[in-house]
Amino acid sequence: MTVTADQIAALDAADPLAHFRDRFAIREGLIYLDGNSLGMLPKQTLARMQQTVTQEWGEGLITSWLAADWVNSPQRIGDKIARLIGAEPGEVIAGESTSINIFKALTAALSLQKGRNVLLSETSNFPTDNYMMQGLARFSDGRLETREVAPDDVLGALDENVAVLLLTQVHYKTARVRDMRAVTRAAHEAGALVVWDLSHSAGAIEVDLNGANADFAVGCGYKFLNGGPGAPAYLFAAKRHHHAEPVLSGWFGHARPFEFEGDYAPAPGIDRFQCGTPPVLGMVALEEGIDLMLEADMAAIRNKSISLSELFVKLVEERCGEFGFAFVCPPDSAQRGSQVAFAHPEAYAMMQALKAREVIGDFRAPDVMRFGLTPLYTSHADVAEAVERLRTICVNREWDRPEYRERAAVT
Amino acid sequence: MTVTADQIAALDAADPLAHFRDRFAIREGLIYLDGNSLGMLPKQTLARMQQTVTQEWGEGLITSWLAADWVNSPQRIGDKIARLIGAEPGEVIAGESTSINIFKALTAALSLQKGRNVLLSETSNFPTDNYMMQGLARFSDGRLETREVAPDDVLGALDENVAVLLLTQVHYKTARVRDMRAVTRAAHEAGALVVWDLSHSAGAIEVDLNGANADFAVGCGYKFLNGGPGAPAYLFAAKRHHHAEPVLSGWFGHARPFEFEGDYAPAPGIDRFQCGTPPVLGMVALEEGIDLMLEADMAAIRNKSISLSELFVKLVEERCGEFGFAFVCPPDSAQRGSQVAFAHPEAYAMMQALKAREVIGDFRAPDVMRFGLTPLYTSHADVAEAVERLRTICVNREWDRPEYRERAAVT
Repeated sequence: MTVTADQIAALDAADPLAHFRDRFAIREGLIYLDGNSLGMLPKQTLARMQQTVTQEWGEGLITSWLAADWVNSPQRIGDKIARLIGAEPGEVIAGESTSINIFKALTAALSLQKGRNVLLSETSNFPTDNYMMQGLARFSDGRLETREVAPDDVLGALDENVAVLLLTQVHYKTARVRDMRAVTRAAHEAGALVVWDLSHSAGAIEVDLNGANADFAVGCGYKFLNGGPGAPAYLFAAKRHHHAEPVLSGWFGHARPFEFEGDYAPAPGIDRFQCGTPPVLGMVALEEGIDLMLEADMAAIRNKSISLSELFVKLVEERCGEFGFAFVCPPDSAQRGSQVAFAHPEAYAMMQALKAREVIGDFRAPDVMRFGLTPLYTSHADVAEAVERLRTICVNREWDRPEYRERAAVT
Repeated sequence: MTVTADQIAALDAADPLAHFRDRFAIREGLIYLDGNSLGMLPKQTLARMQQTVTQEWGEGLITSWLAADWVNSPQRIGDKIARLIGAEPGEVIAGESTSINIFKALTAALSLQKGRNVLLSETSNFPTDNYMMQGLARFSDGRLETREVAPDDVLGALDENVAVLLLTQVHYKTARVRDMRAVTRAAHEAGALVVWDLSHSAGAIEVDLNGANADFAVGCGYKFLNGGPGAPAYLFAAKRHHHAEPVLSGWFGHARPFEFEGDYAPAPGIDRFQCGTPPVLGMVALEEGIDLMLEADMAAIRNKSISLSELFVKLVEERCGEFGFAFVCPPDSAQRGSQVAFAHPEAYAMMQALKAREVIGDFRAPDVMRFGLTPLYTSHADVAEAVERLRTICVNREWDRPEYRERAAVT
């Protein structure tokens, strides 16, 4: 039974999140299915940036560290993120990049795991996660080693040598959702700690770190949280691990940073996971994105995300079934995050053709087209129209055009 | 012989940099002598931020990584910074915090120094520098050790075990300028590499990294470079060291980041010193600050800085001589950077009183008042007026007021 235009309109009419679309700076005509790579601009962010630049920096100058509370922005924003991921106030700190936070989480976990020397992950994890792990192992001069196994072999690879398991909750390419509670339990039973990467889950699905008895987690600010390009990331450390020893021991993680003491003394609580001076301009943009997301109900976000992804899959089958797309995500929508992805030999050129037709998704090497579904600003009509344009491209074999075949360095 | 008002006016009238003052958002009446802690807002930065937020992020979205060249901002801005510090294009990369860049530089240097295990610095170095060194040593489980010696004992502490010497070119408190060429030569003769922290020198004095045969350097974007609160920092690596092995091996330092390969393969050249996704909003603000500074002649900046600091010292002697200030900087202006600092038992409360009188400098524990001299926007008249207000505070013993004596956590 085919999906009708009326059915699509009815889905949007019944959408409890529909009013959020007006809160974003959306360009008419553009179908943006890449909010899991860079989230859209909340309208309120521009005003906040102007205030921060003009008043706080321009007029307040150095006094704004206190007067505008810049100094507590990592904790303040961290506490807001905590509400999205099932953490308590004082368990999350915002700042620096996801990669740096992975390094912090890995080394903090290692400080609690004397006598164990293996860093475990899956081979297809998001590259920077494993790269950070590899760099750490290389630096250890043989003290540490990495173990990267096939996605389904992770639990079986837990043994008495595994210090830390590093996993992404929602896979960046396949959207596969890991069972955080079960994986964490299995890791703990084997004596390992877990570092969860929430980059593709926070703000997209319901995350319950403390419910899963999680140890450490990190995540990205510029995807579903709409924090802006290169937004600061964040780190979660369960309260029971706040005595872990940070390696990246910069002055903002010191117990008394403005006493300018000679010896490092880690701050109590989550503060010791800070390192350098907070990137204020990025922080305030991130805060606006999170404030907006906190207005929405996470269960409603997840429901709409599933509705969008099921519609997407159904329409691709119906409208593009003859063109050889392979759906690379789990078929059960409960098992996948807020994106859909299709493999196709012409994926790269096809994505260029889609962009020319004002549908933005992204290509993930070697042959995957990925479409992010961001319930705050994506409608069912957007999804239907995107699939129609994909069909047009297929019918016309637009991927054969030479201008779409020349591969750019950045995708 | 006392300094007259006419002499001060003549100094400002002859100032070749005077016209730069109009390029900054300066609040009338405020005397800002803290540009070495947070530089002022260039007027052009606000327009650039609006463009980046509204057009590049809001409209261009993910395509701006290429279309607005976000992806090359670390190299592009690095090349501009290179012109301020005597480096070649391709030797400097912007991004992340100074603390993180110190870690990168230290570990990169260590990768070239197999068989040596000592990280050397001076005890009174800026705290975060030594904290990062200490964290690294602690993590090494005995492989590495720190050696922190009195400022004048640094060269004598170079021996066959020293892998890296970490020093700040201009001391954050005393303004003492290290002889980069002589120290680097002595370190090299002892087989050590040097990591220079340029936070208080770049944009304030003439820096010639390659002239000094420097190895690595890092620096801060939010002081003399006027890059905004928490601006990205930068790292310099001499071309001959571009094969060093980064430990913080994030995806932006990969040879082919968008191929999503499983194994880390460092990029050639300076790119391997990148780690996470560049913080775009901070990067564009930093670029405006640097562009503005590049319009000025560095020799003129240094000349004016010396003129301002000599006037400051002379006026404090003349007008506040009886109040017990101890000048803690080198008496020879050629030996000090772009700041003056005075120790006084009442330094903390006195600085609060100055702020109440619209003179902003900063307090550095335990007893130092520090005044930054930023030639692009500070005049000789500012300096004279600041000293007059200091005299008033001293005459009235305003530091006795209880509201100035209560110590804030952040200074």
